[in-house]
Amino acid sequence: MKGYAMLKIGEAGWIEKPDPVCGPNDAILKPLAVAACTSDVHTLWEGAIGERHNMILGHECCAEVVSCGSEVHDFKPGDRVLVPAITPDWNSLAAQSGYAMHSGEMLGGWKFSNYKDGVMAELFHVNDADGNLAHLPKGMDPVTATMLSDMVPTGFHGAELCNIQYGDEVLVIGIGPVGLMAVAAAALGGASRIIVVGGKREVCTAAAKKYGATDFISYHDGDFADKTLELTNGRGVDRVIIAGGNGDTFISAIKALRPGGAIGNVNYLGSGDYIKLPRVEWGVGMGHKAINGGLMPGGRLRLEKLARLITYGRLDVTPLCTHVLEGWEALPQALQLMKDKPRDLIKAIVRLEGHRI
Amino acid sequence: MKGYAMLKIGEAGWIEKPDPVCGPNDAILKPLAVAACTSDVHTLWEGAIGERHNMILGHECCAEVVSCGSEVHDFKPGDRVLVPAITPDWNSLAAQSGYAMHSGEMLGGWKFSNYKDGVMAELFHVNDADGNLAHLPKGMDPVTATMLSDMVPTGFHGAELCNIQYGDEVLVIGIGPVGLMAVAAAALGGASRIIVVGGKREVCTAAAKKYGATDFISYHDGDFADKTLELTNGRGVDRVIIAGGNGDTFISAIKALRPGGAIGNVNYLGSGDYIKLPRVEWGVGMGHKAINGGLMPGGRLRLEKLARLITYGRLDVTPLCTHVLEGWEALPQALQLMKDKPRDLIKAIVRLEGHRI
Amino acid sequence: MKGYAMLKIGEAGWIEKPDPVCGPNDAILKPLAVAACTSDVHTLWEGAIGERHNMILGHECCAEVVSCGSEVHDFKPGDRVLVPAITPDWNSLAAQSGYAMHSGEMLGGWKFSNYKDGVMAELFHVNDADGNLAHLPKGMDPVTATMLSDMVPTGFHGAELCNIQYGDEVLVIGIGPVGLMAVAAAALGGASRIIVVGGKREVCTAAAKKYGATDFISYHDGDFADKTLELTNGRGVDRVIIAGGNGDTFISAIKALRPGGAIGNVNYLGSGDYIKLPRVEWGVGMGHKAINGGLMPGGRLRLEKLARLITYGRLDVTPLCTHVLEGWEALPQALQLMKDKPRDLIKAIVRLEGHRI
Amino acid sequence: MKGYAMLKIGEAGWIEKPDPVCGPNDAILKPLAVAACTSDVHTLWEGAIGERHNMILGHECCAEVVSCGSEVHDFKPGDRVLVPAITPDWNSLAAQSGYAMHSGEMLGGWKFSNYKDGVMAELFHVNDADGNLAHLPKGMDPVTATMLSDMVPTGFHGAELCNIQYGDEVLVIGIGPVGLMAVAAAALGGASRIIVVGGKREVCTAAAKKYGATDFISYHDGDFADKTLELTNGRGVDRVIIAGGNGDTFISAIKALRPGGAIGNVNYLGSGDYIKLPRVEWGVGMGHKAINGGLMPGGRLRLEKLARLITYGRLDVTPLCTHVLEGWEALPQALQLMKDKPRDLIKAIVRLEGHRI
Repeated sequence: MKGYAMLKIGEAGWIEKPDPVCGPNDAILKPLAVAACTSDVHTLWEGAIGERHNMILGHECCAEVVSCGSEVHDFKPGDRVLVPAITPDWNSLAAQSGYAMHSGEMLGGWKFSNYKDGVMAELFHVNDADGNLAHLPKGMDPVTATMLSDMVPTGFHGAELCNIQYGDEVLVIGIGPVGLMAVAAAALGGASRIIVVGGKREVCTAAAKKYGATDFISYHDGDFADKTLELTNGRGVDRVIIAGGNGDTFISAIKALRPGGAIGNVNYLGSGDYIKLPRVEWGVGMGHKAINGGLMPGGRLRLEKLARLITYGRLDVTPLCTHVLEGWEALPQALQLMKDKPRDLIKAIVRLEGHRI
Repeated sequence: MKGYAMLKIGEAGWIEKPDPVCGPNDAILKPLAVAACTSDVHTLWEGAIGERHNMILGHECCAEVVSCGSEVHDFKPGDRVLVPAITPDWNSLAAQSGYAMHSGEMLGGWKFSNYKDGVMAELFHVNDADGNLAHLPKGMDPVTATMLSDMVPTGFHGAELCNIQYGDEVLVIGIGPVGLMAVAAAALGGASRIIVVGGKREVCTAAAKKYGATDFISYHDGDFADKTLELTNGRGVDRVIIAGGNGDTFISAIKALRPGGAIGNVNYLGSGDYIKLPRVEWGVGMGHKAINGGLMPGGRLRLEKLARLITYGRLDVTPLCTHVLEGWEALPQALQLMKDKPRDLIKAIVRLEGHRI
Repeated sequence: MKGYAMLKIGEAGWIEKPDPVCGPNDAILKPLAVAACTSDVHTLWEGAIGERHNMILGHECCAEVVSCGSEVHDFKPGDRVLVPAITPDWNSLAAQSGYAMHSGEMLGGWKFSNYKDGVMAELFHVNDADGNLAHLPKGMDPVTATMLSDMVPTGFHGAELCNIQYGDEVLVIGIGPVGLMAVAAAALGGASRIIVVGGKREVCTAAAKKYGATDFISYHDGDFADKTLELTNGRGVDRVIIAGGNGDTFISAIKALRPGGAIGNVNYLGSGDYIKLPRVEWGVGMGHKAINGGLMPGGRLRLEKLARLITYGRLDVTPLCTHVLEGWEALPQALQLMKDKPRDLIKAIVRLEGHRI
Repeated sequence: MKGYAMLKIGEAGWIEKPDPVCGPNDAILKPLAVAACTSDVHTLWEGAIGERHNMILGHECCAEVVSCGSEVHDFKPGDRVLVPAITPDWNSLAAQSGYAMHSGEMLGGWKFSNYKDGVMAELFHVNDADGNLAHLPKGMDPVTATMLSDMVPTGFHGAELCNIQYGDEVLVIGIGPVGLMAVAAAALGGASRIIVVGGKREVCTAAAKKYGATDFISYHDGDFADKTLELTNGRGVDRVIIAGGNGDTFISAIKALRPGGAIGNVNYLGSGDYIKLPRVEWGVGMGHKAINGGLMPGGRLRLEKLARLITYGRLDVTPLCTHVLEGWEALPQALQLMKDKPRDLIKAIVRLEGHRI
């Protein structure tokens, strides 16, 4: 089979590989639509997860089942399915502890384009198919469905990690596609005021407003903690979702947070030795400012529940899908778009259904 | 002072009483707008809480501060304030346990028109003023503000009691004003599908749709549990909010609920010796179908947070305010409206500001 | 293979059956020690779960692995293992929702001696072996280990279901082996006072005291709710664990519970149409007295964690093991003992290791 | 009145001050026994909370009520009471949010010897007396009772902050008196293995063992994270309680923690600009290693519940009370002992009952 692969750090290209093998609990799928992700960019051009050779890229897609193992009961060849970026081993201790995304080892549920080939290929492999796939809801476009692989579940997990309550004032740091879904999740989770910290890209600001943001702070206008405290009369916010920045972002995040509040981080922290918490603003260790950070939960139930938010009209992901390309040959272009980030881009998605490789 | 009082079960009228006395932590207020509640109807005409003599009615209002005790720091005469129906003693063990509404005794936070005079009077008394009042947000109409006394916090508590998660399918039983706020709370809490059980009043059905209901079941079409199971392909819903019915309602509620789900009851159960849980559908005691029921939390923080949902445009309570009357003399009519429930009524509210008694 | 089976309601005997078949995720085991359970008695002599023909009995054991499927990685033939009474399907939606014990359907994780043959046989089958077995800790006697199948996890789940906090006053209803483990769990969960309701069997009362009970109420001395309120100066307890009684037990349990408290039921409710909650004492639906009931969680992580309580000396289950018999021919006698309940019995266990069938 | 005061950083002595004034919700008390705390040492000799002039020291005591305000209902002169180190304003927004210890401002519940005079005086003032005092249980020695002011609630809060579940493996860093109470809390909270990190003082090691520690690591034997991983076969522990060390302690704490686990910090972090989290071991921001830190909850309910653990024999604090001195003149010596930390010291307590100043 053919696939678009990272040949080594900084270099990508089409390669030929043997078809993936299907174990008793597994399924083999072919993609119907694939989205490119900023983390593909980090993996390929920045070596964020280290060197990889001839590893097929991609972890966001909608797909069709090609074959299933003997123990798979709920799916059959020809089924159109949602596929999560994170595919845990459900028969693991980590899953029993409620943290399936860390099955095998920390972050072990992140397999596509990390420990095994990703989804930018004629065929790809999914472990624990009954637990990791979900049927594509009737009427949902595969392009829309790709947003359920990573953008929606990661953004929503940011809101879950900081435990939003009705009426909470929430700060969302970063309004790329994940941050935008965090804004939507905050609004759908009962937040009142939603303050966002972003850059200069108008397409993102406009989308943030649509998803429920009420106040905007620019990264370029000094410490966002100061602005946040000013906006809240010195109280600080109840919750902070971090969907952008780096290890130093926590310094301002904690300053902006009130005692009894919580931070939910879903940002991949790609460099530096330490994340820093400011001692005094963290209450000399006793301020009850909780710090949580976590990889998105994968699996079928999660996919089904988030898909229902779209089906029942609570969430509209089409504003994310700014660039929809057609056909296999557009895959490199989609990745390049995520790297170059033109002013009008949020996500680049490639429709593969009906196209030949 | 004058007030509109329950003289005895079945009889109401205007009475004269001494002005309330202000302790060091208290405030004396005059109402700017008062809403009539179905529970006033139950109290007055059905004797739901037992006999009372010359007790001033009413527990939903927006008010102005007239005087404050020596220990009150955050309010002063002339301040316009939100007032909760439930006014706990904050310096109590119950408050420290997280259940301030039960301070003193079970349901002890429910004081207005129960243990002491209510708000349908020239003046009324609020204990623990710093903890129980909140400043009326700029630009909020006192009529709107009355919905924050009971309807909003009670409906939202229904959603809190059943712990809604993103994508949950939720059943709301009853779509009177509290049930409607439960629907709104379910949608704002991340529910996907919201199935409601109601009667024939179109004004309620239309409002339910506006607040996010997706499926409608009539009380008159047989057991709503059967319909719910049919709608969910036999799975049952993740959560049930009970905002109507009686002790037998729990039988169907539990049938309609899936294992691992939860019920949140905010309905006053006014008669019968027992609430009944169906043994088999409750998993012979082991089905993990949690049953919660609770009085709305009172207090200032709650008021402030729910008010922010209105201020930031997440919640619009104007569809509840179907009948807005003017002046003190309209109070009896407002109660009568809540008793008669004409087809186009949800709530009857009386604006008192600028009116003389 | 041979096994001791329920031939029909009221009749048991030895039968010959084909050896169980091992799927890719499964294991086949032989028991080293088996405990008889009161629920075996209900199943066999009372038809509690309905008619069954030639179904091998038993769900509490310690065992040795005989063979494993191709996908089993953590166990191999010859391994000595702990086996839970409840063996969920881990690759299921129910497991992903946190309620694996209801995989497939409500109570669907309860397979042994319910949906399939139990453990009182030369060989038995365990699904999802990696997820459902745990290695027998070094030095743990297989007889001791049988208590980890059901008695310990069920009793401890009672404590989990009512969410005990440091210093809570806890009422435990029933001090059979499950109730005794609930007492131990309450003490290990931070309870201060532990009031138990029991009968006249001194062996149970003595064990309850050893496990941490501080006050004793007899079933025969009137309504235990009155006694509990008397002992707590009218406050009621913070938590109630129900490990005995029937549907009417909840009436007194709720009376004895304070607002903001919770009930955790782990008692199999075998008869009657309804469980009854007293309307007034349940705060007319608004008393914040939470009612939870649930089947014990199964699975490997749970077994490992509970086993560690024994390994590190926090929990001693030997007082439960009052009757240890030897050899296959003792199985019927063990069941009979659980039926007859002699005064000095808590549990009857049969050691099979080194014995021929 | 006389009191023993911090005159300025580094200097202490007896001073004369006007008697404290009693507001309507307050009480004035006289101490029966006072304990000296390491934080008194930090305050006085290290200037940990900044300069203070003529501020009376001390926050751990048992006392007798001298007078009460008009709104105090549950206490009267002559009552012997438990007094918490942290005395929140219960009629505050912070209390309603569940974080009363931060009433007024972050850490605002910490008033004694910080914002107002402490308890080492003939008389001292307690705000919100009904909410902050608890009756001394019958038979409890005032010396014992002083441990309930700070040592017990702070240590137990460490366990609460990391949310211990049955069978968890717990690491406790620091085994001074607070760390020892964290060990006791871990054991009483259901921990199986309890690994402690301590120094060379045998009195502490022996007490830790008594309270339930199972494994000992010395601060002097390299990185305790490496030892912890070795002890747990590379898995790491489920929970970490930090009761000693500094901002860098979190680096090892996070290394030693497994994904899905949590840290509970109750250590006062007295210096440095930042607390450091190791990026890679924190799962590049996505490892689900929760970080919590909080001041002990104050208030009456808490005191009553923790006192019950002593009353019912779950907790014995006498091993902490290594040095019990007599009379007012011993107060300076008690502080000096906490500064010098002789080998056999855990806490120095001064009995004042029956002594004249």
